[in-house]
Amino acid sequence: MDSEHTIKAFDAELKILRSRLGEISDLVQSQLSAAVAAIAKRDRGLAPRVISLQSQVDSLQRQLEEQVVITIARRQPMAVDLREVVSVLRISADLKRVGEIAQNVGKRVVEMSDRAAPLRQLTRSVRRIGLLSRDRLAAVLDSYARRDLAGALAVWRGDTDIDDLYAALVRELLTYMMEDQRQITSSLHLMFCAKNFERIGDHATNIAESVYYLIEGRSIGEERPKGQSAIPSAAPAGG
Amino acid sequence: MDSEHTIKAFDAELKILRSRLGEISDLVQSQLSAAVAAIAKRDRGLAPRVISLQSQVDSLQRQLEEQVVITIARRQPMAVDLREVVSVLRISADLKRVGEIAQNVGKRVVEMSDRAAPLRQLTRSVRRIGLLSRDRLAAVLDSYARRDLAGALAVWRGDTDIDDLYAALVRELLTYMMEDQRQITSSLHLMFCAKNFERIGDHATNIAESVYYLIEGRSIGEERPKGQSAIPSAAPAGG
Repeated sequence: MDSEHTIKAFDAELKILRSRLGEISDLVQSQLSAAVAAIAKRDRGLAPRVISLQSQVDSLQRQLEEQVVITIARRQPMAVDLREVVSVLRISADLKRVGEIAQNVGKRVVEMSDRAAPLRQLTRSVRRIGLLSRDRLAAVLDSYARRDLAGALAVWRGDTDIDDLYAALVRELLTYMMEDQRQITSSLHLMFCAKNFERIGDHATNIAESVYYLIEGRSIGEERPKGQSAIPSAAPAGG
Repeated sequence: MDSEHTIKAFDAELKILRSRLGEISDLVQSQLSAAVAAIAKRDRGLAPRVISLQSQVDSLQRQLEEQVVITIARRQPMAVDLREVVSVLRISADLKRVGEIAQNVGKRVVEMSDRAAPLRQLTRSVRRIGLLSRDRLAAVLDSYARRDLAGALAVWRGDTDIDDLYAALVRELLTYMMEDQRQITSSLHLMFCAKNFERIGDHATNIAESVYYLIEGRSIGEERPKGQSAIPSAAPAGG
């Protein structure tokens, strides 16, 4: 009877932890969508919201982390239950970093000058990378919610499209910077935004590893495939 | 007697966890030093070692994470003991990312072309940022080893010097890229290396927060000071 009570109490706390993680997850995903929209439309009105959301994300993540520690201490979960709470901890840490990355994109949108507006084509490429990263994040969070190992593995394996788009964008930006010096500053901002979105893909991969660990009870061992290198070793115009 | 046995068993496991974390810490610090040396001397012979060390770091961190989970499950630590093992988990995750960053610098050294060697002055600036980040990491790991709250807080507060150096370097690199297009590719690699080193400073800050949490039993609340913005909103040459 006592052990049944303990199990119920743990399940109730786990439910709360999961729902808090769900809140953070929703918040970060809407923050990321807003960051992608802000850079795509160069919408400076949207950027401050992207930036200010982060203090909320940080505070929620800190609270969740404390609750996880209290739950481990109070309920002393074992085996799969322990993996459950450890996964909450890991995934929340990745989501926090995704929020920080979205925030950084927001800051760059604010800093980008109106005068040197980059080619629409380049902005579109950055947007595509942003949307792909957002989709990848959504897919892996969905695989977590549904305990879907195949879904998590699909995210874990398929990072090369973002890598390749990023590499193509960097080549375009390099050519562009060399053709028109006045575009260097805004091109650099775009490049860092694209790099930021690419890093979100890496966090999605981390989350996929946490889902694998949660379901399988062990870490993924094998090496992941990687896309092509981003910056060519010599400048395209024969540098 | 039974509880005394449990305490001794926990202490023994904690000692092992700490010593494993110490191993990772030493490995990552030497990896980072090698990365700084590789970019400073553009030493391609050094770079492969920086890159290949990461699989060792990853594997040690994965093992440590598993041991932490086993320790929590088996010993069910409470209060400060629980904070101890949670801190090991957090700090090891930050060290793993520092390793990944060093690895990325190594990859860029390999990719950088010999033909377009950037100004020695710029390489020196990147090296300075790298050394500052390495020192900051060493300082915070030392504060962890000695449970030195003041030392951790000093690291936590003092990130602005790296931010400022980075901002100055970006301005220099922008001017340089505009003066000589052939330098754009290698300048970008330098910029990303500097950005990478700056991010190591952020991980040192995270570790400082883990040390604070370990000693004080709660999270740091207040906002940290930040240095100036890195990329100017308009290009220096009147873009």
